[in-house]
Amino acid sequence: MSQQIHLSIDAMGGDQGPRLVIEASIAFLKRYPHTRLTLFGDFADLEAAVKGSVCASRMSLIQTEITVAADERAGSALRHKQGSSMWKAVELVATGQADACVSGGNTGALMAMGRKLIKTFPGVSRPAICKPIPTARGSSFILDLGANLNCSAQQLVQFALMGSALARVYGRENPSVALLNVGTELSKGSESILTAAALMREHPTINFAGFVEGHGLYQGEVDVVVCDGLIGNVALKVSEGVAAFIASSLKAKLRENRFNQIAGLIVEPLLRRWMAAYNPSNFNGAAMLGLQRTLVKSHGGTDKFGFEQALVAAVDQVSANIPERIAQCL
Amino acid sequence: MSQQIHLSIDAMGGDQGPRLVIEASIAFLKRYPHTRLTLFGDFADLEAAVKGSVCASRMSLIQTEITVAADERAGSALRHKQGSSMWKAVELVATGQADACVSGGNTGALMAMGRKLIKTFPGVSRPAICKPIPTARGSSFILDLGANLNCSAQQLVQFALMGSALARVYGRENPSVALLNVGTELSKGSESILTAAALMREHPTINFAGFVEGHGLYQGEVDVVVCDGLIGNVALKVSEGVAAFIASSLKAKLRENRFNQIAGLIVEPLLRRWMAAYNPSNFNGAAMLGLQRTLVKSHGGTDKFGFEQALVAAVDQVSANIPERIAQCL
Repeated sequence: MSQQIHLSIDAMGGDQGPRLVIEASIAFLKRYPHTRLTLFGDFADLEAAVKGSVCASRMSLIQTEITVAADERAGSALRHKQGSSMWKAVELVATGQADACVSGGNTGALMAMGRKLIKTFPGVSRPAICKPIPTARGSSFILDLGANLNCSAQQLVQFALMGSALARVYGRENPSVALLNVGTELSKGSESILTAAALMREHPTINFAGFVEGHGLYQGEVDVVVCDGLIGNVALKVSEGVAAFIASSLKAKLRENRFNQIAGLIVEPLLRRWMAAYNPSNFNGAAMLGLQRTLVKSHGGTDKFGFEQALVAAVDQVSANIPERIAQCL
Repeated sequence: MSQQIHLSIDAMGGDQGPRLVIEASIAFLKRYPHTRLTLFGDFADLEAAVKGSVCASRMSLIQTEITVAADERAGSALRHKQGSSMWKAVELVATGQADACVSGGNTGALMAMGRKLIKTFPGVSRPAICKPIPTARGSSFILDLGANLNCSAQQLVQFALMGSALARVYGRENPSVALLNVGTELSKGSESILTAAALMREHPTINFAGFVEGHGLYQGEVDVVVCDGLIGNVALKVSEGVAAFIASSLKAKLRENRFNQIAGLIVEPLLRRWMAAYNPSNFNGAAMLGLQRTLVKSHGGTDKFGFEQALVAAVDQVSANIPERIAQCL
């Protein structure tokens, strides 16, 4: 990266408010010297934290008074929240003043503002949300995670192309693509899945590996997993639910009686190190693929390290010219 | 149960063959004195195991030479496997000679034979596959798990009614029902989900609790979770995949070095007891709801205890007149 990358940040999006975003931003600037950040939000009492930082010169704070609520309808946010931190952050990218935007706010509103201000490439009706997930072999990319609830076969093919472009940025040569389905037999699946499979099999640039079932998702057999947004959203959230259920039930077991408590003292550090490898923060930062510039959604409930990872994801996508690459493959 | 319940069993369905089914059957007969079993399969060398059992008088073995393969297409099984253990077992129930049928075989073929021989109630095009899942509060029932890939709103309402009938058998009074969806807000979801929600809200006998997201599935907030078969199948298999991934990664961690191995010696018995509570065998036995008589699908890879649980599930459904109750609520 010889050129400076400029990220635009909606600092009001996360559940924990702008202080966490500022702390993550300072940590990020230390790691990435060739970057600068513009943050939009309500920074009352927080200016001092920035001024004291060695990176203050690469960080601009712009005060905004309006915030998009977490449960606000996208249409309402579009009409009434044009002065909000989210709108301003997206706008800075849309007008070419920044290279990418990161927000931990309301996904529907962020996508609506992305479509309105940044715009999708011709032929893409709505961007697809794409995220890496941890697997037994490292990680895979999965899309769509909820932007497009019922997808045509053509949309699924588009997702395969966009997901492959993103996977290549992370060093996957000729990334393999599978469709998430109820079985691996060629005859099983909904009409759009079966048609998409036929199209992908014949496609010159998609390395189609067939179907993957739900239990294969975390085995990491393929680089990119494609599905409609309803299935992807449920699959991702069910995964989080199972992991949380297992973790809390295991913790309860380790407190059940004196013996288990002692066992817990021994294994808890081990469990913590083990869980750290699958920490969702490591995998934070979902790409909204199909927009003409980079827009990254951070998980609203992430921690400081997680938000930093979302900023890193944005830099990776800008450095690799992801939007241009996607335009070429559509 | 004053009357004797007669179960018909396809002994060739499971991955482990008829020996496991016979062992499970003997264990089951000891627990349930008012039952008798007819098993269909290839019992060469296995007759002795049965004759020695104290329950031999309540167990008939009928030799069949044909087996439905695990990867056989349903249509092909219907045409060419009319002498198979699966066909014979389903037929015994269809002709009223047995009260319920249990098979661990090919789900598609079993459903096809169920529809052909037992038949669905008027208005039900395909049965819905329904299973209990473990949750933080005990268990919930989820349907459909893969029989109906794209469902109309009317089908989802039907699933709610059938799932509620099954939940009542297990002591849930006025069981609460939620639709699995991408968000809990009223405005989010596919058209069929939103229409189904509107219909359920107005329905006199459905206790509709709104939407549940993927991460809420295992919190057990509702008694019955309704979704189309594509989503349900993926959600269930993703859950299995996450649990298996966590278990294998934790085991690997406990073997990583000498210290972890010692910690492992202490916690492994504890982990085993903890995992036993969520053992899939406890929850084995999926109901095919909407058929005019009881048909239970056992997981092909289950163990002896799991198959026994599938037989118990069949007895529960017969005792509670599940098919009749479902006919009344449709």
